[in-house]
Amino acid sequence: MSLTTSIGWVPPSYGLTVIAEAASPDNTISVQVLLDGDGRAHYAVSRKGEAVIKPSRLGFILADQHQLERNFALVAAETTRFDETWEQPWGERRFSRNHYTQLHVRLKESAREGRSLNVTFRIYDKGLGFRYEFPEQGGLETVNIAEELTEFDMAEPATAWWIPAGEWSRYEYLYQKTPLSEVGQAHTPMTIRTQSGLYMAFHEAALVDYSAMWLRHVGGQKFKASLSPASTGPKVSRQAPFTTPWRTLQIAETAGGLVENDLILNLNEPNVLGDVSWVVPHKYIGIWWDMHIGLATWGAGDKHGATTERTKAYIDFAAEHGFRGVLIEGWNLGWDSDWFARGFDFDFCKAYPDFDLEAVAAYAREKGVRIVGHHETAGNIALYESQLEAALDLYARLGVDSVKTGYVADVGGVRARDDKGNIVYAWHDSQIMARHHLKVVAEAAKRKISINAHEPIKDTGLRRTYPNWVAREGARGMEYNGWGNPPNPPEHEINLVFTRLLSGPMDYTPGILSLEGNGQPLQSTLARQLALYVVLYSPIQMAADTMENLARYPEPLRFIADVPADWAETRVLNGEIGDFVTIARKDRHSDDWYIGAATDEEARTLEVVLDFLEDGRFYEAQIYRDADDTHYIGETRHNYVQETKRVRTGDRLTLKLAAGGGQVIRFTPHSVG
Amino acid sequence: MSLTTSIGWVPPSYGLTVIAEAASPDNTISVQVLLDGDGRAHYAVSRKGEAVIKPSRLGFILADQHQLERNFALVAAETTRFDETWEQPWGERRFSRNHYTQLHVRLKESAREGRSLNVTFRIYDKGLGFRYEFPEQGGLETVNIAEELTEFDMAEPATAWWIPAGEWSRYEYLYQKTPLSEVGQAHTPMTIRTQSGLYMAFHEAALVDYSAMWLRHVGGQKFKASLSPASTGPKVSRQAPFTTPWRTLQIAETAGGLVENDLILNLNEPNVLGDVSWVVPHKYIGIWWDMHIGLATWGAGDKHGATTERTKAYIDFAAEHGFRGVLIEGWNLGWDSDWFARGFDFDFCKAYPDFDLEAVAAYAREKGVRIVGHHETAGNIALYESQLEAALDLYARLGVDSVKTGYVADVGGVRARDDKGNIVYAWHDSQIMARHHLKVVAEAAKRKISINAHEPIKDTGLRRTYPNWVAREGARGMEYNGWGNPPNPPEHEINLVFTRLLSGPMDYTPGILSLEGNGQPLQSTLARQLALYVVLYSPIQMAADTMENLARYPEPLRFIADVPADWAETRVLNGEIGDFVTIARKDRHSDDWYIGAATDEEARTLEVVLDFLEDGRFYEAQIYRDADDTHYIGETRHNYVQETKRVRTGDRLTLKLAAGGGQVIRFTPHSVG
Repeated sequence: MSLTTSIGWVPPSYGLTVIAEAASPDNTISVQVLLDGDGRAHYAVSRKGEAVIKPSRLGFILADQHQLERNFALVAAETTRFDETWEQPWGERRFSRNHYTQLHVRLKESAREGRSLNVTFRIYDKGLGFRYEFPEQGGLETVNIAEELTEFDMAEPATAWWIPAGEWSRYEYLYQKTPLSEVGQAHTPMTIRTQSGLYMAFHEAALVDYSAMWLRHVGGQKFKASLSPASTGPKVSRQAPFTTPWRTLQIAETAGGLVENDLILNLNEPNVLGDVSWVVPHKYIGIWWDMHIGLATWGAGDKHGATTERTKAYIDFAAEHGFRGVLIEGWNLGWDSDWFARGFDFDFCKAYPDFDLEAVAAYAREKGVRIVGHHETAGNIALYESQLEAALDLYARLGVDSVKTGYVADVGGVRARDDKGNIVYAWHDSQIMARHHLKVVAEAAKRKISINAHEPIKDTGLRRTYPNWVAREGARGMEYNGWGNPPNPPEHEINLVFTRLLSGPMDYTPGILSLEGNGQPLQSTLARQLALYVVLYSPIQMAADTMENLARYPEPLRFIADVPADWAETRVLNGEIGDFVTIARKDRHSDDWYIGAATDEEARTLEVVLDFLEDGRFYEAQIYRDADDTHYIGETRHNYVQETKRVRTGDRLTLKLAAGGGQVIRFTPHSVG
Repeated sequence: MSLTTSIGWVPPSYGLTVIAEAASPDNTISVQVLLDGDGRAHYAVSRKGEAVIKPSRLGFILADQHQLERNFALVAAETTRFDETWEQPWGERRFSRNHYTQLHVRLKESAREGRSLNVTFRIYDKGLGFRYEFPEQGGLETVNIAEELTEFDMAEPATAWWIPAGEWSRYEYLYQKTPLSEVGQAHTPMTIRTQSGLYMAFHEAALVDYSAMWLRHVGGQKFKASLSPASTGPKVSRQAPFTTPWRTLQIAETAGGLVENDLILNLNEPNVLGDVSWVVPHKYIGIWWDMHIGLATWGAGDKHGATTERTKAYIDFAAEHGFRGVLIEGWNLGWDSDWFARGFDFDFCKAYPDFDLEAVAAYAREKGVRIVGHHETAGNIALYESQLEAALDLYARLGVDSVKTGYVADVGGVRARDDKGNIVYAWHDSQIMARHHLKVVAEAAKRKISINAHEPIKDTGLRRTYPNWVAREGARGMEYNGWGNPPNPPEHEINLVFTRLLSGPMDYTPGILSLEGNGQPLQSTLARQLALYVVLYSPIQMAADTMENLARYPEPLRFIADVPADWAETRVLNGEIGDFVTIARKDRHSDDWYIGAATDEEARTLEVVLDFLEDGRFYEAQIYRDADDTHYIGETRHNYVQETKRVRTGDRLTLKLAAGGGQVIRFTPHSVG
């Protein structure tokens, strides 16, 4: 009758003893490390004295040695402080402060193996990260990890926004909003709002040469790490010494507080590429939406999109309107038979006969436009890696300094080669793919090429270490408005801000000014399409509509051409997950400020205070807003108003957003008024 | 704002088309096989025209080939009927009817690999089973399975009784009762009660040379197969042709209907051992509870339990009271240092100096008692298999025809050798362990020895094929009442009947007549201890208390000595999961009937009709019941009443069960009255 709770063999000695603890610089967040009667290591997190994470297990199951999860004793615990402000070469803000207390705990088995395992906690005032360290030691030179035992046992019930993990080799889902207790297996970032109103995001930082962490619901509010599977061999194989990625928890009292949190970047290593002035934030157009709405094809034939002629027309359009880049998809051989999730036939150096790569590249150089390269692999990285260097050399020679890669594949369907050269099938976020993506980024960096990966492994902040990894997709993007069933509902882009975007820049590709997909309307207003350039951060932003469609909206097109893709400051003025959000950003290269706002299917009136504007100056506010009759469903979705106001710091603005709508404002300072 | 549901890439063509269907013999249950627009195979189940399982995926992720899950086309679908009644050598009932409609579906990829995959459904009036068949085909000789994609998408919300999978290498949990939507990853059998009141149990049958299926909650009411991991290599590796275990669903309108369902046995292959008259259902006592309550130790020392002297005393006690077997744990070397979850030191042929195996065995033979052998491996099957044949030969020579094996291990901590002879660590229910258990059973059968495995792989009905695999533990047993925190609450044994026991016999080891653990009282009444011999089926039943304690309760001891361990018929008279149950069973070797009843922490009055008794005869009903003042907490738990009544078929009996109590009745026919 009564609801019993799961419990295993609990010896009388099963008491938890605190062996180490530390608090964040201002003592908001504290971490305890504990051992139970069997020497199982646990950690616990509290905030302002309230439990946030109850004692949760730490440890590993090894593939070829006894599990590393009990009989631990404390060797030493060391606490240190760190405080540094560093500059981002590009980003949502120019400067970031990395201020934490570090607790380094060294554990050793009392059992006969006597193996060592260390854990490092970095405790911030607004979250924490921890990672394992496998020190150099005899008997454990090669660490073959079958599973990580890390747990996250939340102290109170919560609402979760999540997408399922282990379903297919992509992150392209609409977000589910459910009680935390009803989550299945989730990808990170998973964002929650606790019963007591705290906002938290679970994720990981610096996913390098390791398998991605999925969060598997165990029961109640408890989750367990579930490493992305390897189809053969252990999930992770590494040589000691090494450290795992950071397991991260961001905590804020507002949803926006999560967006303003740099914890993920701070836990990554500094730039290892040196001078990255060649990484240029920009906007681009391209031959892409044509295919998604059925006007053109990637493959050969009458409707082939990537022809020399059409590409030159796009280059002319880019030059005329001030877009730096032109993306061309479907230019290379391999799209014509059964390519999906196989990609056996792709040739990354050979163009279709109707596409003259050399001529197109020369024409672009002449026009001062950059070709944006494209490498679709269909997940066949075994093939891609065999051509990678030649393909990048080709682009480098032609002046292509930005490449969009693609990994369209289905469940566990990435085709790769393991260390022994055998063909294996892997998940998009397995260790083999973590290695692959960094290999591509490193090879690209040698040639001063930036990478924008689609159907990628999730972002874990590696753009700090490799600033040429400028963006990626990794969520349900604009193409679903072309053919998706259903298309992206208005709440989706709001959800992205508080989930996917917490991990890093997303190449969502806004700017479908026609608001038309392939026989289905976009669930968006026109003003919202403009607002997305401020709401959804990326250092590269596409104006995704066809050039013919873009040309039909000269004023909005002008805004897109002008809006920055690189920022000095970012502030979230308001927002609730899945409901609405308003973000203010300052241009990195001028004194201009922008605010972008968007709402879900409900019309909203949002009050904002312009306290971010510089004191003592007047600004011209150039406003693009929904018209009074605008609604995201029906013809009125096209209606917008462009108006100008004179404002200064401290002024209040009322943003009226239509159902499914948005608003964007550019603030340009006058001389001191 | 609105709750969105998870959806991936859904092409316009994504419609489901029925390609085959069939119904159970009386048309209660029907199955449809469907293909979607991408050729993904699905199945759906309905009962009396109502959906039970919504279209759910079928397929596999392979480790070294492209996933086998889409681009399928129907080659052929064949429907056949089968109806057979077969006899069990021992069991809950003598005869079982195996009556089903079989739907055999052959699928072939239209994609370039063109691989074949077949699925066989056996549709019963009270459930179904389906399994995959990998036919012999070029290019897929060795099938390396990374994951099985089988889904179970329940058509309506339900309450679930479940234990977590993937937490540790045992099933020893109290059952959780939660909404189905809050289940994490569960072991099977998982039992549910749907909103509309149907009872269902998910499990598998004939787990042979394959990895056990865990049920992973995906979201909503949807579950997905998650095969027990292999620490190295794919989860399953087989040579084609082969078939997977059956994925089973038992359906009933009452909880008891699940218990009376022989589907799991029917889906297993018939006896392959021929004459198994040497498999003898029986009861046994032994040197076991002494250790669990701290009176003795398994290892050497002053308190060593398994001494020659004490064993001879147990043999005398068994001979005097009519128990066939005497179990001796801790007789062999290897218990003395850090044995738990390692078992490096076990020697299965060498006894401790204070235990003379030869002398003890000779004494037992002389007294007409059988030694019950014991092999604790601590999960170190690499070591055990190296000694297995010698250890079984030794027992066979000494007349030991029943062996209790043990696999005490923690998370993924079974130590094994893979095909290449490398040491690997595995889960208790991985493919390597499925192979190990059958190897032990087969080697034992050669020597006419029966096996009772503790901390085993779950039961999937293989006792039909290997009748010497008489029982196993595989759930939280009596020992938790010795030292468990908490001990087993009264609801636990009721839960077992409707969950764990659906899979097969359990060696729960009732009969702790002292009702005392190690410093903690049992949460049971004395009458309940007797009732458990009828409520919890096993062909081998222990009287688990120490012989000194048993001797203090002559009348209950007499009942235990007399109660059968083999039955001709079994009927569940009433019951609700976790609340109460009453089961009637007919002795296989006499005309006696027994009924056993037990309740949770609530006192209950249950009305039963004796319609199972033979017409025209009077029976003496020998009743052991709780006294009027009995309660499972406190001293009154010892109070019971033994009384006798004269009854005949159709009579009504009122069973009054104390809180946490039970009742057992033996019906012995008089000559025709």
